[in-house]
Amino acid sequence: MKHIVAPRIRPSLTFAALSLVALGAVASTALAQQQPAATASAAALDRGNVLKSPGIFGVFSTYKVRPELYRLANAQRKGMAAEVTALADQYKDKIIVDAYLTRGLSAKSDFLLRVHGSDLAAVQKFMVDFRATRFGVMCDVTESLVGITKPLNYITKEKSATLNAGLSSASYSGDAPRYSIVVPIKKSAAWWNLSDEQRLKEMESHTHPTLQYLGNVKRKLYHSTGLDDTDFITYFETNDLGAFNNLMLSLAKVPENTYHVRWGSPTVLGTIQTLDSVVNTLTTTK
Amino acid sequence: MKHIVAPRIRPSLTFAALSLVALGAVASTALAQQQPAATASAAALDRGNVLKSPGIFGVFSTYKVRPELYRLANAQRKGMAAEVTALADQYKDKIIVDAYLTRGLSAKSDFLLRVHGSDLAAVQKFMVDFRATRFGVMCDVTESLVGITKPLNYITKEKSATLNAGLSSASYSGDAPRYSIVVPIKKSAAWWNLSDEQRLKEMESHTHPTLQYLGNVKRKLYHSTGLDDTDFITYFETNDLGAFNNLMLSLAKVPENTYHVRWGSPTVLGTIQTLDSVVNTLTTTK
Amino acid sequence: MKHIVAPRIRPSLTFAALSLVALGAVASTALAQQQPAATASAAALDRGNVLKSPGIFGVFSTYKVRPELYRLANAQRKGMAAEVTALADQYKDKIIVDAYLTRGLSAKSDFLLRVHGSDLAAVQKFMVDFRATRFGVMCDVTESLVGITKPLNYITKEKSATLNAGLSSASYSGDAPRYSIVVPIKKSAAWWNLSDEQRLKEMESHTHPTLQYLGNVKRKLYHSTGLDDTDFITYFETNDLGAFNNLMLSLAKVPENTYHVRWGSPTVLGTIQTLDSVVNTLTTTK
Amino acid sequence: MKHIVAPRIRPSLTFAALSLVALGAVASTALAQQQPAATASAAALDRGNVLKSPGIFGVFSTYKVRPELYRLANAQRKGMAAEVTALADQYKDKIIVDAYLTRGLSAKSDFLLRVHGSDLAAVQKFMVDFRATRFGVMCDVTESLVGITKPLNYITKEKSATLNAGLSSASYSGDAPRYSIVVPIKKSAAWWNLSDEQRLKEMESHTHPTLQYLGNVKRKLYHSTGLDDTDFITYFETNDLGAFNNLMLSLAKVPENTYHVRWGSPTVLGTIQTLDSVVNTLTTTK
Amino acid sequence: MKHIVAPRIRPSLTFAALSLVALGAVASTALAQQQPAATASAAALDRGNVLKSPGIFGVFSTYKVRPELYRLANAQRKGMAAEVTALADQYKDKIIVDAYLTRGLSAKSDFLLRVHGSDLAAVQKFMVDFRATRFGVMCDVTESLVGITKPLNYITKEKSATLNAGLSSASYSGDAPRYSIVVPIKKSAAWWNLSDEQRLKEMESHTHPTLQYLGNVKRKLYHSTGLDDTDFITYFETNDLGAFNNLMLSLAKVPENTYHVRWGSPTVLGTIQTLDSVVNTLTTTK
Repeated sequence: MKHIVAPRIRPSLTFAALSLVALGAVASTALAQQQPAATASAAALDRGNVLKSPGIFGVFSTYKVRPELYRLANAQRKGMAAEVTALADQYKDKIIVDAYLTRGLSAKSDFLLRVHGSDLAAVQKFMVDFRATRFGVMCDVTESLVGITKPLNYITKEKSATLNAGLSSASYSGDAPRYSIVVPIKKSAAWWNLSDEQRLKEMESHTHPTLQYLGNVKRKLYHSTGLDDTDFITYFETNDLGAFNNLMLSLAKVPENTYHVRWGSPTVLGTIQTLDSVVNTLTTTK
Repeated sequence: MKHIVAPRIRPSLTFAALSLVALGAVASTALAQQQPAATASAAALDRGNVLKSPGIFGVFSTYKVRPELYRLANAQRKGMAAEVTALADQYKDKIIVDAYLTRGLSAKSDFLLRVHGSDLAAVQKFMVDFRATRFGVMCDVTESLVGITKPLNYITKEKSATLNAGLSSASYSGDAPRYSIVVPIKKSAAWWNLSDEQRLKEMESHTHPTLQYLGNVKRKLYHSTGLDDTDFITYFETNDLGAFNNLMLSLAKVPENTYHVRWGSPTVLGTIQTLDSVVNTLTTTK
Repeated sequence: MKHIVAPRIRPSLTFAALSLVALGAVASTALAQQQPAATASAAALDRGNVLKSPGIFGVFSTYKVRPELYRLANAQRKGMAAEVTALADQYKDKIIVDAYLTRGLSAKSDFLLRVHGSDLAAVQKFMVDFRATRFGVMCDVTESLVGITKPLNYITKEKSATLNAGLSSASYSGDAPRYSIVVPIKKSAAWWNLSDEQRLKEMESHTHPTLQYLGNVKRKLYHSTGLDDTDFITYFETNDLGAFNNLMLSLAKVPENTYHVRWGSPTVLGTIQTLDSVVNTLTTTK
Repeated sequence: MKHIVAPRIRPSLTFAALSLVALGAVASTALAQQQPAATASAAALDRGNVLKSPGIFGVFSTYKVRPELYRLANAQRKGMAAEVTALADQYKDKIIVDAYLTRGLSAKSDFLLRVHGSDLAAVQKFMVDFRATRFGVMCDVTESLVGITKPLNYITKEKSATLNAGLSSASYSGDAPRYSIVVPIKKSAAWWNLSDEQRLKEMESHTHPTLQYLGNVKRKLYHSTGLDDTDFITYFETNDLGAFNNLMLSLAKVPENTYHVRWGSPTVLGTIQTLDSVVNTLTTTK
Repeated sequence: MKHIVAPRIRPSLTFAALSLVALGAVASTALAQQQPAATASAAALDRGNVLKSPGIFGVFSTYKVRPELYRLANAQRKGMAAEVTALADQYKDKIIVDAYLTRGLSAKSDFLLRVHGSDLAAVQKFMVDFRATRFGVMCDVTESLVGITKPLNYITKEKSATLNAGLSSASYSGDAPRYSIVVPIKKSAAWWNLSDEQRLKEMESHTHPTLQYLGNVKRKLYHSTGLDDTDFITYFETNDLGAFNNLMLSLAKVPENTYHVRWGSPTVLGTIQTLDSVVNTLTTTK
């Protein structure tokens, strides 16, 4: 029986800082893989900075491993994880790679990669090179979402001071999250044809019941209208899936929900892991 | 011709206890596989307790066997069932595994696993390890639903005393169920935007006609908003599919049904079997 | 060039009897395969009785043959039909198997099996054993529908005497049907929320224009709410597809049609054949 | 580089005659393949007569060639076209086969067969035998539509004299068509619940703007309610795709369009070719 | 690690000229591949002229590489790019081929070909010949869109002088675009049933907010009603995806958006590359 490596406990400091921007900040995962003991390699991106900045691309790709991988002898699958990790390291000055194991929790994928970078072409190069590894040629892409980070649209200090203060005053205080959930969202033409004031009002109703969950669910928002077939990619991390379920119910119960034409489909639920752990898990059989 | 092992007759005691929680309690299946004569292994979970508790995760995964399994000689398929059963036994202190044969009754799957545990990561580990067995590498996942149990929402002693009493007073009295049906349910934004009082009223109308079926259909409810692309997973066991058809018709005939955006799709109908029997059946050819 | 065996001409007697129950009775197909000259085997089910009784399960499964079948030499495919027919014979005291060739007329399947039995578990056992034959392991299931027969709901002597008499007075008088059509039907929540009286009124409007087609289209109805993702499975046999097209148009032109959320999808059109003929046709190449 | 054989120029006489029946007459394609120099074979169907008659079945099947065809050596693919053409010749007294190359223009198919015959079982036999040829076993069916020809419903001399005269007075005068387009159409329950008079009025509005395109787009209509999951199969031939695009826009701009629940999906665009040319093109690599 | 060749910087002159026709002009891509140093070959099409002319067909095909390509040794994949490029060169007097790498950014494809020509049959011949190359036989088509260019419909000098002037006065002034986005659009029957004046008014509202993006997003429009299952194919090039996202949001916020029944599905995002680079990238592994 194979063992899934427990996700690293990450310093809460990063999260506290990020939680200032509700729906705009999630600290993340397998930092380790971006920080090997390489000597001469380029300087790695500053993770905290990248995750807080606007104008950063986030590419979410889910993959299924093809059965032929398991027709290889275990020995032939050895080293695949190291090869993939080394590739991510080569790109560490341009992109940040996070990995999630979805097998067993999502029907349409075995794992998810979330890749951040300020240059989308560089992100694509990594994605292409990943597919050219021995492990990558055994994987099929099952979903691809491309988003870009932007400053807050609605709940700003200027437009909605009280709620903005509410968002800023709370910070994540739960255990290190073990789970992430990705929910693509598309809104109807009726939504986009509301006035700015109407949309602000709806987003205030949307935001109010979520304040109580800032302590146990982290969130980050990506904008993707025109870049793929959604308007938004919402990303969550939590260690308390019951609280997350309640958060999502509270979002279902506001009028803004009546403007959704896509909310999930797929909802991607996975465990936060290092890239090395994900590939190791998927390349090992008894 | 291969023989399908008849489902074990389980003591009605368990069911009587569970039926106190309508739509929240279904006794279950192949208990045997969780109770081998292992000596030194960890203590198995208490099945009745797990099935009655809130905060328990239920993962439902349907699988199709890939044709390549049948290109193996019968001899090569020998032992696959024992390997899978042994794996489930290793996890018996963390999870409970129920198995159902759906081949011949559902187009999109050959079998269903329902796995309960209080730690979703442990459930995932089992799912991943199952896929790494000789049988598991031959299977494709075709649907995955993740839910969590919660206390009753609507028909409680406080909010709806008479109906609650009705639910509590009846218990399953039919033959040991041979069939299970899983029906994922998603409700519209209009539903979630009703007031709590309105939803309670609708759920009372929903519950009333179901009382008469408590004697021959067992039910259990899982909440999954945000965990997958449904809001609820409803699980049923019965030995009387005609009665079950009538129950479902009675649920179709109340206004709550007008708020469904998903009701089935897929409906998963299978026979309740031991895990050993399911794998044996699917790995044997003439 | 291979020859498709013409469907057997069946005695009209059976059909005359069955046509008493409009939308509830279709005589059927390849009776021969249920009546081999076996000596010691169990008594076969009484076909006419089974098809007229309520509480009988009807399982409809469509299959596609995988291309690998045709990579086998013709000699390796020899005997596959006999093997399948022998299997059906072993079950003849429990189930009735009808077979239809859909290749060339339906994109999603090559053949259809319709299996009747009073014990659904026995039907499943046959389905599972069929998939374990040399032919069955080469087939993929593409659709599976499960229904149960019930007494008439609406157009009874009591509720709608004139129409009931109209249904009873006409009988099929056309040539032996060569074609069957299966049309799954699902109705909206609005339909099910009508009162019994309103639904009766709509079904009377539905039934009236169909009387004229009793002479050349046979029909049988199965109820499947909760057993699969439809509410009804409607089954037709005819030798006059132009008349059938007109019948379906007349059903499209009544208000009841506005309550359909599924009508077909798939519509399964095939020719009525013996099981032996279907398997022979699909296992022979030039 | 392989060469696609240019479609034969067919005598305009046939088309002039057929264009008398607007939306009911399209001359056709690869007549040559139905008229080999066979001596003793049965008399071929009269093409013009078949295409003008009511009660004729038209089966439209699209196919994709499986990649394994191209793993065969070119030599092994030799003769496949001749084999298929010979098969069509054997059936020439019962059916008429037209072939279209869709590769490069439609994602879901490589070619389309349109087969006419008065006996649907004979059409099916050909379809089945085609799949049993060396080429056919390498093909997957991706869409299957079954229709039947009928006399005009709405724009008749009796009901709509002026429009009927307009349809009759114009005839196709363009270059020999090189392109065909197949568009399946399904109408809503609201359409079918209109009165005959209302539907006639809508069809008059539908027909009026199409008169100007009779000279450069040929059309033929098949009825398929109940035979597959559409109500109509509309078939077009043209050499002027810009004019065809304008024709379709004019049909989009009338109220009848608001009753469509399927219009295309798929739209099948291909070039008109001989059966021999289609198979040759698809079985040849560099 | 493989290197993705940076798209060539193309002279801005071409784009300045094309930008006169808003939503009708996008300069393009890998011009180099159409201009090899061939001596005796036919004269290449004039790219600028083709892209500005009405009556030109544009075929958009997306492809996925099948995994079997990567089972070939690297040596066996050598020369595939040259073979494809040589094929495009043979057609350079009839068609113009543009190539885009979508792997890593779109789930359903690895690359996109956009092919222009005045004769659709010639475009098809190229598409067919491409599939017959060693690389092409390893590719599956995942989407195919066929459109035709037309003169402006709405925002003309005559109908909407001010907006037309606005469109004409601005020209692309950003960096050479590295990204292209293809968005298929289908409009509802309600849209097409508006009067010409109403549609003009809506298109004016649609056009107004887009003027500010002429400087950093190029656009080209193809009409496809009846040629495939969309009404329009909109094609964009940009180097500023944030601006593009804002452009698409501005198009979402006008009433015309309420008439969309398809907007994307798929949205195809890729990087602009030479055909040689695309094939090289996809045929190289480590």
